[in-house]
Amino acid sequence: MSGMKATVIRRATFNAAHRLHNPAWSEEKNAAVFGLCNNPKYHGHNYTLFVHITGEINPDTGYVMDLKVVQDMIKELVIEPFDHQNLNLDVPAFANLIPSAENIARIIYDRFRAALDDQFVVKIVLHETENNFVSYPAE
Amino acid sequence: MSGMKATVIRRATFNAAHRLHNPAWSEEKNAAVFGLCNNPKYHGHNYTLFVHITGEINPDTGYVMDLKVVQDMIKELVIEPFDHQNLNLDVPAFANLIPSAENIARIIYDRFRAALDDQFVVKIVLHETENNFVSYPAE
Amino acid sequence: MSGMKATVIRRATFNAAHRLHNPAWSEEKNAAVFGLCNNPKYHGHNYTLFVHITGEINPDTGYVMDLKVVQDMIKELVIEPFDHQNLNLDVPAFANLIPSAENIARIIYDRFRAALDDQFVVKIVLHETENNFVSYPAE
Amino acid sequence: MSGMKATVIRRATFNAAHRLHNPAWSEEKNAAVFGLCNNPKYHGHNYTLFVHITGEINPDTGYVMDLKVVQDMIKELVIEPFDHQNLNLDVPAFANLIPSAENIARIIYDRFRAALDDQFVVKIVLHETENNFVSYPAE
Amino acid sequence: MSGMKATVIRRATFNAAHRLHNPAWSEEKNAAVFGLCNNPKYHGHNYTLFVHITGEINPDTGYVMDLKVVQDMIKELVIEPFDHQNLNLDVPAFANLIPSAENIARIIYDRFRAALDDQFVVKIVLHETENNFVSYPAE
Amino acid sequence: MSGMKATVIRRATFNAAHRLHNPAWSEEKNAAVFGLCNNPKYHGHNYTLFVHITGEINPDTGYVMDLKVVQDMIKELVIEPFDHQNLNLDVPAFANLIPSAENIARIIYDRFRAALDDQFVVKIVLHETENNFVSYPAE
Repeated sequence: MSGMKATVIRRATFNAAHRLHNPAWSEEKNAAVFGLCNNPKYHGHNYTLFVHITGEINPDTGYVMDLKVVQDMIKELVIEPFDHQNLNLDVPAFANLIPSAENIARIIYDRFRAALDDQFVVKIVLHETENNFVSYPAE
Repeated sequence: MSGMKATVIRRATFNAAHRLHNPAWSEEKNAAVFGLCNNPKYHGHNYTLFVHITGEINPDTGYVMDLKVVQDMIKELVIEPFDHQNLNLDVPAFANLIPSAENIARIIYDRFRAALDDQFVVKIVLHETENNFVSYPAE
Repeated sequence: MSGMKATVIRRATFNAAHRLHNPAWSEEKNAAVFGLCNNPKYHGHNYTLFVHITGEINPDTGYVMDLKVVQDMIKELVIEPFDHQNLNLDVPAFANLIPSAENIARIIYDRFRAALDDQFVVKIVLHETENNFVSYPAE
Repeated sequence: MSGMKATVIRRATFNAAHRLHNPAWSEEKNAAVFGLCNNPKYHGHNYTLFVHITGEINPDTGYVMDLKVVQDMIKELVIEPFDHQNLNLDVPAFANLIPSAENIARIIYDRFRAALDDQFVVKIVLHETENNFVSYPAE
Repeated sequence: MSGMKATVIRRATFNAAHRLHNPAWSEEKNAAVFGLCNNPKYHGHNYTLFVHITGEINPDTGYVMDLKVVQDMIKELVIEPFDHQNLNLDVPAFANLIPSAENIARIIYDRFRAALDDQFVVKIVLHETENNFVSYPAE
Repeated sequence: MSGMKATVIRRATFNAAHRLHNPAWSEEKNAAVFGLCNNPKYHGHNYTLFVHITGEINPDTGYVMDLKVVQDMIKELVIEPFDHQNLNLDVPAFANLIPSAENIARIIYDRFRAALDDQFVVKIVLHETENNFVSYPAE
């Protein structure tokens, strides 16, 4: 009964340092493409994460999924590995992947997609600043 | 001419008490599933409601629908019955329905769906806290 | 590889005066339909604009599109022509089009659609006040 | 018993057009000093107002002042005269006073100061944009 | 060296039910004074709390006070006793005190004042809704 | 005429990496005191800055100070030296000063105090996260 599907969203925040840098390129090209975001000594952000989970409303609980469970998943899959870390140096997922907002959202998506049953649809929205944010998958 | 369709969104707020409780379950199971949200003396929230209405832009007004009309509908369909109320005890719609954010959004959706012409598509987004919110129907 | 598509969103603000008025109608009908928004001496808003752009994530940059480029496009296509202007009197696009939020979003959409390659999908979300906003095209 | 004094704050919003212009100056000087804010066809803002009232907590009500009363005062003293108006042309208080945020806050302060008993201290905070705001009297 | 004093602020949220009711008054007077806030079945809010602590900046840490310590104090003094509770029925401090925003702020202030060394100055700001908030002591 | 004084506030944002570390202490003590904030590879924040300037309202302009001037000062004194930088490594002011929010606010204050005439009073409010912020001088 698809009319009873809803989407629940849980918000969380984490703080991290990062740097945008493509090791296959020269320093000049990195500086030209990424500008200040290429600073070799890193800069950082307060990231705001929104995890969207779509599924059937369970008639016994009124829940699509208990948001305390989602909160715990966010803690395990995102906060503990990312918060107060240097994404380039401390997080293996970005050892060979540029930690742009798009790629951070994609990595977070992959973790939730692997952890959740197939009956749930996942979308990740990640705010890097108040002016810049991304959705993965695409809207 | 579907390219001229837009979605208009109106925001509103209301405050209410509620409790998550399934009368078919034991007290123990209710406490285990709902935790603090099962407090028999109730707790409460400032709900923030977003009513999304999709339709053609009327060339005479530039409006999909006059948002003052949507504001009046929100007042009649949501604010007057819900604001400063105990959702479990004061609102008949929740006499036999757990007032989770998902179900509150669904009840609000049903009221707008019944009140609006078929040419309009409706979606309800309801924030229960700054960290927890829902969309009905699903995104 | 559609699984690698993401949506990037850039936020910006501008301030403008406007008036809702249909010159084909009598003053009485304009006042009845548009109310205070029909004030002949204009009123104004702080508009908040969100430009959503969907496309493939470029593996060399981690970007769908460099948001500094989007920021420059917003400056050229929206801020310079609209900011601190009277939309009815100063902006030719509204010489014969009511500057409702729906129509402002549509005009902004048309400008981005014309400026961007076909591989990108565009959506405009425009907040006229904290309670009223629109999406074009429709959600 | 000064330890029992508290400050209550009520927020409200209004939208208006305005223009910064000093009629004692040449057009050139006005343009140089006020820049885009001097546009003769006006621009506008969503103003966000915070009325701060300090006084003793009444032990019978727990209130410094019923915020519904403050809300009604804001409606009478600010919203009805200012909302959806052109501050320069429609509001007599600005016939000979530049409607800068500082002066708008001062006019609002004067109205509350005149309307409230001396036992209450008043402060007005007015946001003209998300980046620009003022307090009157000074902090 | 008073020039080296700063104020640090920690934000937190909690959700609770409450009712404004003076037992010394008739039902009629309570309804007249408190309106919907007098609903005998309670309503509720998402409270947002700001704890302001003023003191010297410690040159060894750069801190006035470690905000993790303030976070722990908020958890012990406010979140655990108030969150997801009925303030009138579950919180002894309000057994004989109307749980208005002013009085909730005052009770929270008293707890921090008792817990902190005299070298620190405390102020509590409490938002009951986005439109209504209080400061205790007075600004 | 002190009754004509007002405070104007300008908001801005910048992003930076930092680390809290006292070189006079052992690694163990640094880790114990600063926790995750001591990560040797840095973490980062979106800082939100509010510059408060108090002075007389100029009757010719209606301004305490042109906020475009304040915006330019913020750009020169804060954004250019701090934005997208590593505060510990790239900013000389923190070569021997722990870049806590308190100290960052103090450094910013000192720069504005030196740049502004004595007739103006300055206060800096700096948000390090949505939950942690500071005022310098103290409130």
